[in-house]
Amino acid sequence: MGGDAGIPVTVPAAFAFAQRFPDTQLLLVGLPHELALAVDAAKKDFPNLASARFPIVAASEVVAMDDPVEVALRRKKDSSMRVAAQTVKDGLADACVSAGNTGAWMAISRYVLKTLDGIDRPAIATALPNQKGGATTMLDLGANVDCTAEHLLQFALMGAALAQVGNDGRSPSVGLLNIGEELIKGNEVVKQAADLLRQSALNFYGNVEGDDIYKGTVDVVVCDGFVGNVTLKASEGLARMMSVIVREEFNRSWLTKLIGLIAMPVLKRFRKRVDNRQYNGATLLGLRGVVIKSHGSADQIAFGFALERARQAVASGLLARTTEAINKLTKNQAASDLKSSGDSV
Amino acid sequence: MGGDAGIPVTVPAAFAFAQRFPDTQLLLVGLPHELALAVDAAKKDFPNLASARFPIVAASEVVAMDDPVEVALRRKKDSSMRVAAQTVKDGLADACVSAGNTGAWMAISRYVLKTLDGIDRPAIATALPNQKGGATTMLDLGANVDCTAEHLLQFALMGAALAQVGNDGRSPSVGLLNIGEELIKGNEVVKQAADLLRQSALNFYGNVEGDDIYKGTVDVVVCDGFVGNVTLKASEGLARMMSVIVREEFNRSWLTKLIGLIAMPVLKRFRKRVDNRQYNGATLLGLRGVVIKSHGSADQIAFGFALERARQAVASGLLARTTEAINKLTKNQAASDLKSSGDSV
Repeated sequence: MGGDAGIPVTVPAAFAFAQRFPDTQLLLVGLPHELALAVDAAKKDFPNLASARFPIVAASEVVAMDDPVEVALRRKKDSSMRVAAQTVKDGLADACVSAGNTGAWMAISRYVLKTLDGIDRPAIATALPNQKGGATTMLDLGANVDCTAEHLLQFALMGAALAQVGNDGRSPSVGLLNIGEELIKGNEVVKQAADLLRQSALNFYGNVEGDDIYKGTVDVVVCDGFVGNVTLKASEGLARMMSVIVREEFNRSWLTKLIGLIAMPVLKRFRKRVDNRQYNGATLLGLRGVVIKSHGSADQIAFGFALERARQAVASGLLARTTEAINKLTKNQAASDLKSSGDSV
Repeated sequence: MGGDAGIPVTVPAAFAFAQRFPDTQLLLVGLPHELALAVDAAKKDFPNLASARFPIVAASEVVAMDDPVEVALRRKKDSSMRVAAQTVKDGLADACVSAGNTGAWMAISRYVLKTLDGIDRPAIATALPNQKGGATTMLDLGANVDCTAEHLLQFALMGAALAQVGNDGRSPSVGLLNIGEELIKGNEVVKQAADLLRQSALNFYGNVEGDDIYKGTVDVVVCDGFVGNVTLKASEGLARMMSVIVREEFNRSWLTKLIGLIAMPVLKRFRKRVDNRQYNGATLLGLRGVVIKSHGSADQIAFGFALERARQAVASGLLARTTEAINKLTKNQAASDLKSSGDSV
């Protein structure tokens, strides 16, 4: 139901996705009448797809994009978000995806699904393109404003588990976002987190700086949700500004428009490579279920990528991998606690 | 002496600047022999400029780009940075500019010049391009990792005084960098800072998000040095990645290279508009003197912009404006303290 466009984007995207992945079934959660109409419309474009692959799960309420978290959580107890999370909880679905209100989606999925053992706080992670042609996984992007060093360690662990998808079993390298060597080297929390990461079983690279996100220095960049959210939004703003300026320059006169036409194939390839739709779909990590957040402004193509991210997470056993990593960490900590208590005797 | 290239960039840039601004004199501070050779070389390109406009002020030491702050401050007491800051302190110069080690430059200029009354911590500010074709002033960019609400208020005040240069007397709008409405709305310090800013005489817009920096929503964006540094560096990284991808796409084949040649005039205009050299020159605000930090990797053109920034700050009376703003704030606070103590009687 969610996102700026709602059903007209999500339902056709679900059909296109089902077409590409014949082994999937897509539960459409929300206002049943509206969804039924959208399914009928979509079936015209996908006559070969059986309706049975798109069961409608009824929910009587919809969380608005501007609903406060409390309203979404306490007053709308039959919201499509709540019901969708419950389908995962009940084992009816392997993953759930929403393009709605981020804060509400995090709060509701956390309330319904609960966090994994050993995880204090869920985090939001996304993949960003980098200069090496790969993707950098970054977290937290806004779920946690004030973080302790232990939280950052847990983010690192969850981010590494996520980045391992398609990483050929190689242990993803983890960088801790910090500021320049030449300045005061970060705050106390970041310093302590670096110590914890050094002692962990993770492939810890060390501190990285803002530009390392796009350089592709490491597979995973860890930071608190305030820094991550500001950085992500600033990047979106910069990319938008640059594309506006490109458009302005090519629209300056008939000559530049002609040049634009000639350069179109190259510009298109460029746009395709930096198209942020292919990076749509943030993962809400640390929950007992796969929960994906699509950008609210996602179009059908972008929403399809969010669905794909859900599929990848399930297919690659994200939850099992995360749980295993936490267990290993807890065991190591217990061992080192034992060792240090032994030392002190 | 500083920067990645050192004298081969700074001295020719000084001559080019002197050519453009006939009323300026440029004190060249550093190793006298090396500077004398560079002056001789530069004079060949600028035969009309009198040597008297480029007096050499001798310093026997140079702070290295990787010198720890303590070494720069305590061991190198006759460094070019120290001597340069002293020329401002002694009234021999109106402003000083360095492309060297940021941490050392901040520490040394602060040690020599001291902070203005009412300012607890100096901050680093820079101008960034925005979609409206103007510039957004952003601070702090890394001088202060942990900030209180009062520090953020002082940054806002200093940033507004800086942004007023060429703002036609209009009071610059100030935004406080925060994260999305839909999420937990920022940390406690940011909330308190918003309260202080609302009570201040500043033209406070309210909270802004990362993308507002490049949208040009406000004239001044205020944040702590950790967030500011990461955001700035991430932006640099993203811009670099995009320009690498553009180059790769135009170099793909003889056809795309040909298209690149045809599109050259448009690409050049684009590059000129987003050329970050024109934004070179961060201002170290809150000191009893105009201190500018050039990017270490600045070339001659970029370093020229840093010199220009120093000139503008002096010509526009930045220090007087900042002092006035602080005095007004202090008076208002005293008045409101008096009022609230009166209320309680």
